[in-house]
Amino acid sequence: MQNCQGEDVVAGIRTPESLDKLPPIIREELGQIAAKLERHFADMQDFEFTIENAKLYVLQTRSGKRTAQAAVKIAVDMVSEQLITKEQAIARVDPDSINQLLHRMLDPNAKNQPIAKGLNASPGAASGIVVFDTEEAATLGDKGGKIILVRPETTPEDIRGIIRSEGVLTARGGMTSHAAVVARGMGKPAIVGCSSIKIDMEKGFFKTADGVVVKRGDIITIDGSSGQVILGEARTIEPELTGEFRTLLQWADQTRRLGVWGNADTPDGTKRARDFGADGIGLCRTERMFNLPERLPIVREMILGEDERERKEALRKLVPFQLSDFKEIFRLMVGKPVTVRLLDLPLHEFLPSAEEIMGEMETLRSKHLIEPLAEKARLLAKVHELSEHNPMLGHRGSRLAVTHPEIYEAQTEAILRAAIEVRREMGQTVRVLIMLPLISTTTEMAYLRRVVDSAAESVFNEMNERIEYKVGTMVETPRAALIAAQLAQHADFFSFGTNDLTQATYAFSRDDAEAKFMAQYLDKRILSESPFEVLDVQGVGRLIQFAAHDGREANPKLEVGIGEHGGEPRSIRFFHQTGLDYVSCSAYRVPVARLAAAQAKLEATSTVLTTA
Amino acid sequence: MQNCQGEDVVAGIRTPESLDKLPPIIREELGQIAAKLERHFADMQDFEFTIENAKLYVLQTRSGKRTAQAAVKIAVDMVSEQLITKEQAIARVDPDSINQLLHRMLDPNAKNQPIAKGLNASPGAASGIVVFDTEEAATLGDKGGKIILVRPETTPEDIRGIIRSEGVLTARGGMTSHAAVVARGMGKPAIVGCSSIKIDMEKGFFKTADGVVVKRGDIITIDGSSGQVILGEARTIEPELTGEFRTLLQWADQTRRLGVWGNADTPDGTKRARDFGADGIGLCRTERMFNLPERLPIVREMILGEDERERKEALRKLVPFQLSDFKEIFRLMVGKPVTVRLLDLPLHEFLPSAEEIMGEMETLRSKHLIEPLAEKARLLAKVHELSEHNPMLGHRGSRLAVTHPEIYEAQTEAILRAAIEVRREMGQTVRVLIMLPLISTTTEMAYLRRVVDSAAESVFNEMNERIEYKVGTMVETPRAALIAAQLAQHADFFSFGTNDLTQATYAFSRDDAEAKFMAQYLDKRILSESPFEVLDVQGVGRLIQFAAHDGREANPKLEVGIGEHGGEPRSIRFFHQTGLDYVSCSAYRVPVARLAAAQAKLEATSTVLTTA
Repeated sequence: MQNCQGEDVVAGIRTPESLDKLPPIIREELGQIAAKLERHFADMQDFEFTIENAKLYVLQTRSGKRTAQAAVKIAVDMVSEQLITKEQAIARVDPDSINQLLHRMLDPNAKNQPIAKGLNASPGAASGIVVFDTEEAATLGDKGGKIILVRPETTPEDIRGIIRSEGVLTARGGMTSHAAVVARGMGKPAIVGCSSIKIDMEKGFFKTADGVVVKRGDIITIDGSSGQVILGEARTIEPELTGEFRTLLQWADQTRRLGVWGNADTPDGTKRARDFGADGIGLCRTERMFNLPERLPIVREMILGEDERERKEALRKLVPFQLSDFKEIFRLMVGKPVTVRLLDLPLHEFLPSAEEIMGEMETLRSKHLIEPLAEKARLLAKVHELSEHNPMLGHRGSRLAVTHPEIYEAQTEAILRAAIEVRREMGQTVRVLIMLPLISTTTEMAYLRRVVDSAAESVFNEMNERIEYKVGTMVETPRAALIAAQLAQHADFFSFGTNDLTQATYAFSRDDAEAKFMAQYLDKRILSESPFEVLDVQGVGRLIQFAAHDGREANPKLEVGIGEHGGEPRSIRFFHQTGLDYVSCSAYRVPVARLAAAQAKLEATSTVLTTA
Repeated sequence: MQNCQGEDVVAGIRTPESLDKLPPIIREELGQIAAKLERHFADMQDFEFTIENAKLYVLQTRSGKRTAQAAVKIAVDMVSEQLITKEQAIARVDPDSINQLLHRMLDPNAKNQPIAKGLNASPGAASGIVVFDTEEAATLGDKGGKIILVRPETTPEDIRGIIRSEGVLTARGGMTSHAAVVARGMGKPAIVGCSSIKIDMEKGFFKTADGVVVKRGDIITIDGSSGQVILGEARTIEPELTGEFRTLLQWADQTRRLGVWGNADTPDGTKRARDFGADGIGLCRTERMFNLPERLPIVREMILGEDERERKEALRKLVPFQLSDFKEIFRLMVGKPVTVRLLDLPLHEFLPSAEEIMGEMETLRSKHLIEPLAEKARLLAKVHELSEHNPMLGHRGSRLAVTHPEIYEAQTEAILRAAIEVRREMGQTVRVLIMLPLISTTTEMAYLRRVVDSAAESVFNEMNERIEYKVGTMVETPRAALIAAQLAQHADFFSFGTNDLTQATYAFSRDDAEAKFMAQYLDKRILSESPFEVLDVQGVGRLIQFAAHDGREANPKLEVGIGEHGGEPRSIRFFHQTGLDYVSCSAYRVPVARLAAAQAKLEATSTVLTTA
């Protein structure tokens, strides 16, 4: 008897024969043993056997490895076969792994030769022509071109280019760099930190380590699930949201206590969140509504307004745009809660950079165009006036609204007007939650709640109709968490903005941390993982516990949810244990969160079950 | 009888006559009544009387207003006269008011005509010639010139100019702007936010609202106690630290429980702190040791070093400078604790700005100086590499040391070598505390403590002599406060860095907040005072309570102090109540803190006493 037959197969020395070649009696015996093993272990088995002198020997068995897709199918099948319970099925599927099922992927049967590899920052595969310039990407994208935006790294100025692209490839940046976070939020494939490519922005090409030169206009495919960059248009396949997957998620919904909401600020995103099973919208940002090409000039008019009257006039022109945005979103979510966060970004984010303006002034000067030159000079002065040393900690969010209440007034008007119009139209109510960002004092909360409430009254009077709405705050400064008992007296809900809260709690700027020291921190095991990916339970988590506890004690009706880290399974476990009402995450992660929330509930109620 | 005689005097209609003109019998009666009133009210009285038909009528009496100097004298005198107790004397003097006694002041007998008025950011009067350029101020100051540095606002780049000036005047900025904070720290007079002056930096003059033009080189006097700017050299007088003042402070020392330490990073500052009664040095920053003219080139060599070896070599050259700095400070404080904070600033603070380098490159290019040009280009690349979006939350403090441990190694070597040498020299020990800034994780603390301890062992081996030292951390991120129990297992002491802690807790950048919205926040009563001036008890204070409690529970030997807000009386009351061991503040505020700490103790033990 040869003891090493199994090893020989694995080593490729012997090729196993087909089962058909077995004598029927052995084949039958093998089938019986296989069924017995699967029943005994209540899981798909990967077992080795040998036959010697017409006798079947089973050498070893273990639970078989499987793709996410197979894991879902096996788990659901085993419930039908009554081998395991629904709860066991839920516990067996790794929520992180199902993420890949929700995006377009490279055809596994095609042979692709990657030319470079970066960090798999946002899953999914996409092909398009290489464009290096954000403006060009936006313009070509508008005309229907399929673009892969390639940049050394991205900044908020690249948002328009990213929106119009199929995917993003950057040479620098980590898993939480701007490009990575924005792309994940939009559900667009992204590869970041692809440091082996050298980009020549001026000449318009990049070169790989192997010397492959890819020029502007060449077609590439990026696979954000694996980090692979492929020359040309690779074959991709649509993800299949199989019947088994839907079944599993329905079981998860019956099991979980945590609500799962989605983050979305466009009708497309809202539809996706709803289709992926979101119970509501937990974070509808409003920056995009100010940043679109036809609106930006009006926004700039508002910023450059000399006084409140001029600013109000410009804001009035923006209301119709916002009204139609909100109506589309409310229609899609009718009957379900939609949380709208009022403007959070500092005003300078809506102006061009000083360098850009100075470049334009140079041109105007050479052409002796005096009047436009004076206008640019005025813009430049404003940019300088608004510039900040630490913009993240600067004049934004609620602070901007304390000095410019007219902005939140106009937003409130658009939101509530839209809600009433949609209710009239559809006969079903819209559940509106208005969220104030970056609160750090009770007085800010009380003052801005008055601003919102009084704008609401104006709308109700004018439309001769009222609608219920809630006003709450994003708890994203450590102080907001520390004074939660007082804040809760003015708030109907809290939503933890764990991204900013993590930055302030560590005194980390995410971008700077990623760019400068995060890599070494992970390398030296100072941090075991980035607190921007997995919630920091010890520090940020402690603040969340304080705030949820103190807030609810002061206001028993307070609803408490989370707007970020909401799709990360380990963080969801913590949010479940802390007793939050809901989590909210990117639409693409809603199924992940539904499953993880169910697992968190099962774990809390039983210690017998184990995850696969 | 005329009932309105008192009012007539106040209104200036009647001039009161001299007491000498009174009939002797009335004068004696008046003296008896005065003594009786003072005894009865146990305080100096301001009373009105009239005489009609040779009869004395006392109309009203009240406790008299007094200057700080008079308040001290009256309180101490009344103790000698056994009218009040020492405790009552301590309670009667307003600590904030004695601040003015500790600085040179305008001669109250001279008639000065102010040409402008700004915020009284740092008390004291100073005269000098107006200089607008920081470099010029530094150069002229080096040559012994007396300079008043006048700037639109100051930035860390102006430090050298401020050091060499007698005082600072800025057109912009609030009470916690860079100029204000730095000047207060150095005990230099400063007026900030003097918005009525228009500075023309290019032509070198400023103009007041009344049209007075003050040119570079003209002499002005600034009074940081009142905010007045005076043309020419006004007469000033030295503050008198009267015998009564010393007596009062000695009583305060016998009463208080809180230690009062001083912040100082120069021998001058250390001497001042000691002379003003500091029990130790609570914060010796080390940035200045890197920033002095003869050292900056070596620091830049270190920053530009290609690898750890090159960086270490440059750092080695800095050790002798630091050694002599530390020896001078240790000699002055021998027997008392000295807390040295290791490097906190990001590296880019030690490099010129990109604009400055590009300007120099322009010049070199025009002169076709190829080699220096290449060197500048390399410097510029480094500046770009190190630049950050939010430097306050970036790669600095302990984070810099995690990636560049050689910096803290070299600093530890200089500190402990100096301590041993001073002990050998003076036969008395030096109590060294080494403080790690901006810690946010236990792993950082543990890792850097190992770096310090192993550098210490090398020194001890080499010198064949050991010295005791403590290693602790500045608790200045919210997370450090939240994980205090774990940090305390690696720390001998905590010192709260409330400036940074306040910034992170509110998610406020102090500079940006001051520049953009603080004024409106105070105006709309969103904040009743700046949390950078008076500790925010509700938010930051809660973190301090957690950390002090959790830290001591985990490590009963943990010493807990405070490095900022340490000279502000209301904050001191909170620190006393929270049970901290000591406060530390600018040398000039040490007497204020001694008195306030005594009052805090008295208030906690008795509710009968009231402050004047």
